Amino acid sequence: RINGDRLWDSLMEMAQIGPGIAGGNNRQTLTDEDGEGRHLFKRWCDAAGLTMGVDQMGTMFMTRPGTDPDALPVYIGSHLDTQPTGGKYDGVLGVLAGLEVVRTMNDLGIQTKHPIVVTNWANEEGARFAPAMLASGVFAGVLDQDYAYGRKDQDGKTYGDELKRIGWLGDEVTGARKMHAYFEYHIEQGPILEAENKQIGVVTHGQGLWWLEFTLTGKEAHTGSTPMNMRVNAGLAMARLLEMVQTVAMDNQPGAVAGVGQMKFSPNSRNVLPGTVVFSVDLRSPDLAKLTAMRARIEAEAEAIAKSMGVGYAVEAVGHFDPVAFDPTLVDRVRAAAEKLGYSHMDLISGAGHDACWANRVAPSTMIMCPCVDGLSHNEAEDISREWAAAGADVLFHAVVETARI
Amino acid sequence: RINGDRLWDSLMEMAQIGPGIAGGNNRQTLTDEDGEGRHLFKRWCDAAGLTMGVDQMGTMFMTRPGTDPDALPVYIGSHLDTQPTGGKYDGVLGVLAGLEVVRTMNDLGIQTKHPIVVTNWANEEGARFAPAMLASGVFAGVLDQDYAYGRKDQDGKTYGDELKRIGWLGDEVTGARKMHAYFEYHIEQGPILEAENKQIGVVTHGQGLWWLEFTLTGKEAHTGSTPMNMRVNAGLAMARLLEMVQTVAMDNQPGAVAGVGQMKFSPNSRNVLPGTVVFSVDLRSPDLAKLTAMRARIEAEAEAIAKSMGVGYAVEAVGHFDPVAFDPTLVDRVRAAAEKLGYSHMDLISGAGHDACWANRVAPSTMIMCPCVDGLSHNEAEDISREWAAAGADVLFHAVVETARI
Ligand SMILES: NC(=O)NCCC(=O)O
Ligand SMILES: NC(=O)NCCC(=O)O
Repeated sequence: RINGDRLWDSLMEMAQIGPGIAGGNNRQTLTDEDGEGRHLFKRWCDAAGLTMGVDQMGTMFMTRPGTDPDALPVYIGSHLDTQPTGGKYDGVLGVLAGLEVVRTMNDLGIQTKHPIVVTNWANEEGARFAPAMLASGVFAGVLDQDYAYGRKDQDGKTYGDELKRIGWLGDEVTGARKMHAYFEYHIEQGPILEAENKQIGVVTHGQGLWWLEFTLTGKEAHTGSTPMNMRVNAGLAMARLLEMVQTVAMDNQPGAVAGVGQMKFSPNSRNVLPGTVVFSVDLRSPDLAKLTAMRARIEAEAEAIAKSMGVGYAVEAVGHFDPVAFDPTLVDRVRAAAEKLGYSHMDLISGAGHDACWANRVAPSTMIMCPCVDGLSHNEAEDISREWAAAGADVLFHAVVETARI
Repeated sequence: RINGDRLWDSLMEMAQIGPGIAGGNNRQTLTDEDGEGRHLFKRWCDAAGLTMGVDQMGTMFMTRPGTDPDALPVYIGSHLDTQPTGGKYDGVLGVLAGLEVVRTMNDLGIQTKHPIVVTNWANEEGARFAPAMLASGVFAGVLDQDYAYGRKDQDGKTYGDELKRIGWLGDEVTGARKMHAYFEYHIEQGPILEAENKQIGVVTHGQGLWWLEFTLTGKEAHTGSTPMNMRVNAGLAMARLLEMVQTVAMDNQPGAVAGVGQMKFSPNSRNVLPGTVVFSVDLRSPDLAKLTAMRARIEAEAEAIAKSMGVGYAVEAVGHFDPVAFDPTLVDRVRAAAEKLGYSHMDLISGAGHDACWANRVAPSTMIMCPCVDGLSHNEAEDISREWAAAGADVLFHAVVETARI
């Protein structure tokens, strides 16, 4: 078994960096706080005898050598970046549990044929730079590195410039590494494990996603002296689109979600009808046909609503991945590890996107999940127990060591 | 008649300060650009022989002496501040037409019994600091000066600090001045004069207004892994409120408007359901009973919608004035001046709020309007013709001189 207290202490120490306003964290990608978090993680890895490689997207790869110089490494990864009002465990648990696996192997003197590489993927959250899982997407060859470098935050700063600024632009060609297998341990971020009273989620699939950014163009005009019948009201059109998106999601229950998290009115003045309203719909399903049909219906109905109101309409896909089926052999190995360790478990579909979804394109991959209180995530109040954290790390340890031995 | 070319040249010169991004202006209250605009106006007033007083709200009073030392001044006022994406004429026309009236009086050697005071009210727009017409509201004793000083912009800077920072905190006690009469000349900001092909709007009334700021509190949560039935969706509640506000406005046609110009999602991240959504409803009618009833209905229905969705609800009134009836004697004098000068005219209700609405509380007041192209205002494309501008200034000149002579 891993050392649950040591894992917990590391989680708490990392949470000191980029504190939030309500007990969580604000350690967004490529901020100074992200840089600080990376340095702390590197110090811990140095102490554990790992050697570092950094790729041109800023992802950190910390290697524990294996006994066979020709054997490809087994990767354990997740992310240290957070949402602007994020929790202490989303992503961080997976990275520090990877470190804990290595520390435990050191304690027990375990040697493996395959090297172990603990990985901190850059920009998983996508909060500062859309899309999410940007660095793993480039690594997997799905996204272009120049595209990634050009992604802008809300202040217009680019990924490429900010990566240089914080000093974490590495020299490894992104995606040059080959993997024997990839494991990711993460909090569920949903309510199922807690409701079913299970300690371990054996993740068999991941939902697919579209991020659709709508731009509605109205006529900027005075809210007081512009008669109702002369308005070209992009704000009202937005309201109708949100209601329509909700209807489409409800029509596709069970097995789909849709919602809006980001919204911008311009010029955003109380007495000016907006000239433009830009907002982002997050649309997901584990079923590819459903996901594709929902996207088509949302775009068609959105355009019809906007047109009927004389409102200008544009849509851009700013994030996408298809539903994922993880590697059956690794999934079985995770399930067997949970069983052997005596932890209650169930199969799960991941509701969130993870770097594992992209890693799965280039190597056999899978995930392990632990419950989180009230299914809450992307919220500073996100919470898990020390025991939950440790149980998943135990399963990770056993599944990884077994995979790395062979 | 006034000098229409000189008026137009001054308008164009002022428009050089705080240029917008699409041909208009961004010269918001208490910014450096506002300071620059004030200095230019002062230089012109100095050249015209006016003496300056500045009150503790930052309003500029430029005086041309009268012949009777005991006679109260006739005021001509409006504002030089603009919306973030504002036009070149909204407010500016009224101030510079006041200056043009004085310049013409100088040219013609006209002496009046009453002094003339050309006034640049601070923070008319309310775009940077809500509510609108803040300085005239304090002047009229309706708003408290400490309240005004504490108003914050979106960066958290206060009115009081910014007034000091730009160097326009005056020493006159706000509201200490007494007025014989108050005149304000403004573009219509609506479509009626142009549609009716009239040169002059004789403004008999002004609409009343409520600015209602709603705060909806949802449960900040992951957009992907939070099932639809577990969401407390403040964004969706906002959409329903916007549709409801539209319905209330349409149920009260003719004679009412309502719309939403300002909107803020927090944390405003694509994959986070918003923890809070704050937005501002602008609600107006010239009929007090209707205005009051609409406000009550909107608040009641908003609360019911939010409650039915489990969404937290709060509302704050951040701006208000009752409908206004301008002084009948001054209204008649404006109408007679238009008639005498041979300009086509019609009676109008002002759709927008103006400093005249507050001045009317402490002195006989009225307004003159000229058409604007397509009724467009609070838009950089706001436009008027040189002839329209001059016609209203002529009417202003005659009405003011007649009032100041008596
Ligand atoms: N795990 C997680 O929250 N990832 C961010 C990408 C997503 O929105 O699913
Ligand atoms: N005239 C004008 O646009 N004033 C701003 C206050 C309002 O919104 O009516």
